[in-house]
Amino acid sequence: MEDPAGPHAFSAPHREGVYKAIFERRDIRAQFVDTPVEDELLDRVLLAAHHAPSVGFMQPWNFVVIRDPATKERVHAAFLRAHEESAAMFDEKRRRKYCSFKLEGIREAPVNLLVTCDRSRSGPVVIGRTVQPDMDIYSTVCAVQNLWLAARAEGLGVGWVSIIHEQDLREIFGLPKEIEVIAYLCLGHVSHFPERPELEKAGWLPRLELEKLVFREQWGQR
Amino acid sequence: MEDPAGPHAFSAPHREGVYKAIFERRDIRAQFVDTPVEDELLDRVLLAAHHAPSVGFMQPWNFVVIRDPATKERVHAAFLRAHEESAAMFDEKRRRKYCSFKLEGIREAPVNLLVTCDRSRSGPVVIGRTVQPDMDIYSTVCAVQNLWLAARAEGLGVGWVSIIHEQDLREIFGLPKEIEVIAYLCLGHVSHFPERPELEKAGWLPRLELEKLVFREQWGQR
Repeated sequence: MEDPAGPHAFSAPHREGVYKAIFERRDIRAQFVDTPVEDELLDRVLLAAHHAPSVGFMQPWNFVVIRDPATKERVHAAFLRAHEESAAMFDEKRRRKYCSFKLEGIREAPVNLLVTCDRSRSGPVVIGRTVQPDMDIYSTVCAVQNLWLAARAEGLGVGWVSIIHEQDLREIFGLPKEIEVIAYLCLGHVSHFPERPELEKAGWLPRLELEKLVFREQWGQR
Repeated sequence: MEDPAGPHAFSAPHREGVYKAIFERRDIRAQFVDTPVEDELLDRVLLAAHHAPSVGFMQPWNFVVIRDPATKERVHAAFLRAHEESAAMFDEKRRRKYCSFKLEGIREAPVNLLVTCDRSRSGPVVIGRTVQPDMDIYSTVCAVQNLWLAARAEGLGVGWVSIIHEQDLREIFGLPKEIEVIAYLCLGHVSHFPERPELEKAGWLPRLELEKLVFREQWGQR
């Protein structure tokens, strides 16, 4: 570990923990095991989510915890429909590879979690959302990332299922109009955490060089 | 620290580090000091951002590092225009309080950072973005949150300035059409990290009870 950069830096083990969670977090689809997820553990990662930054301190998120296999089956059926549609969008060669990937663990994960954003929370005028109206959505995404990192630290795998139509989730969970779906997550203990992201390992796309993504002072300037 | 929940949980000090970053992260506006931010330190937090989850492994982000005071002045002028507009949206009583808050540290922070999302990266068909087109934006928000937590561990403050029109930032930084602004951040060492979020401390809004935000199986069900 590098020397601490200043008086407010964490101790070396605490800093290591943060970077370890960031670098070893994975999107889990195929590695769920059926060890139950205790409520206390779930509460800890939900509390981490709840301490995300939120625009104007509006805390716009809600969490629906799903353990009922019948609900998971309905969500999985909605995934299958969207997955079939999606497969048709890839060209022949990519499609075969696309279809070989396992992209969700909805039925295997002991816990599913729907994360939503209440766009009406705390009234119509929110500090910091006056000229950037999507800031409440971004706050909710930050909550997902907090949860994901806390889960990794707890040894709990998380997968984000995005191949599913929002409308299907709205109907399955009975969401009111002002509530927007942000994420559908699968959570559970895992056999292992893959060393690298699965799409990287499968050669779908390479890890980009960070250096090429960073500009100085102006767009495109190095 | 609780007992580890399973074989893949981090050690107690590593888990503590993760929760410490999550609970002690703050949106910094008024506490920046002029200690320089070294490139090595900035590289570490950018690498943390670059290891965010990304839909279809597209890594859609770019980072523009700004240290030039003249550029910061232009951004600050754009903030002031949006801030004035925003103030007019609050009722009389709220407006006075709104105007008393310090909401950005653009000129005081040694480093400003523009975080963008390249919606065209890796081509038109992206795994996981086929039916939820905003997933690339959400990936970029996850990168912001990774950076924010890594920065906290390093003792570096971060503030997200959202009271600014995207169009102003597009012009100042010369962004191409397919590039979307996600976040304008201020980074620097700080005099201290406030114990609680400033809007909570000022009594603008209270911390919500997590329990009331969590439902079971269906929306609204406890």
